[in-house]
Amino acid sequence: MDIADWREKIDAIDRRLVELLSQRAQSVHQIGKLKAIARLPVYEPEREKMVFANARSANEGPLTDRELLRIFERIVDVMRQSEMEEMALEQRPPSDGLGDTEIDPEVND
Amino acid sequence: MDIADWREKIDAIDRRLVELLSQRAQSVHQIGKLKAIARLPVYEPEREKMVFANARSANEGPLTDRELLRIFERIVDVMRQSEMEEMALEQRPPSDGLGDTEIDPEVND
Repeated sequence: MDIADWREKIDAIDRRLVELLSQRAQSVHQIGKLKAIARLPVYEPEREKMVFANARSANEGPLTDRELLRIFERIVDVMRQSEMEEMALEQRPPSDGLGDTEIDPEVND
Repeated sequence: MDIADWREKIDAIDRRLVELLSQRAQSVHQIGKLKAIARLPVYEPEREKMVFANARSANEGPLTDRELLRIFERIVDVMRQSEMEEMALEQRPPSDGLGDTEIDPEVND
């Protein structure tokens, strides 16, 4: 295989990664909805430790555990922030038609 | 599904993510070896733009493109650094048995 072949393989892996990350974000969002009902906090440091331990337990290399955790820290951070923003939007009081132009819900896209 | 069920689903997704990230790192390493032979640079900004464009093109949400790219920036960054360290180790002159204790190849684990 030459460089172009390996890059095609990487591109296919990346598209699959996007698919899994989307499924993960959907699951995080479902948990966020259940937490909102139960008035539980979005950020649970003990759960995040378990997420990192689970990822580490599946690691057979070639990435070191530290390299893998740097990636998972970012995944967890992005999804936690996304969920917090989502909940903040949902918890806004219903609009009375005033001030609708002040907050743009598309600001994160 | 309750919170525990969704967390089981996330843990299964994460183990699959680890598997794909490992395959991706192996592919990056194969490219690194081919680049070393051809004396090409590890860092190619144009290729990285194509990686981000490919990820973005596969994104159907719920993550925004910006959130997805924050994750891919970390993936690309970790793998580039890992590859540069790997190449630096391989390009060391063969050991003459002196100074073997000065560099610990396990330092990144």
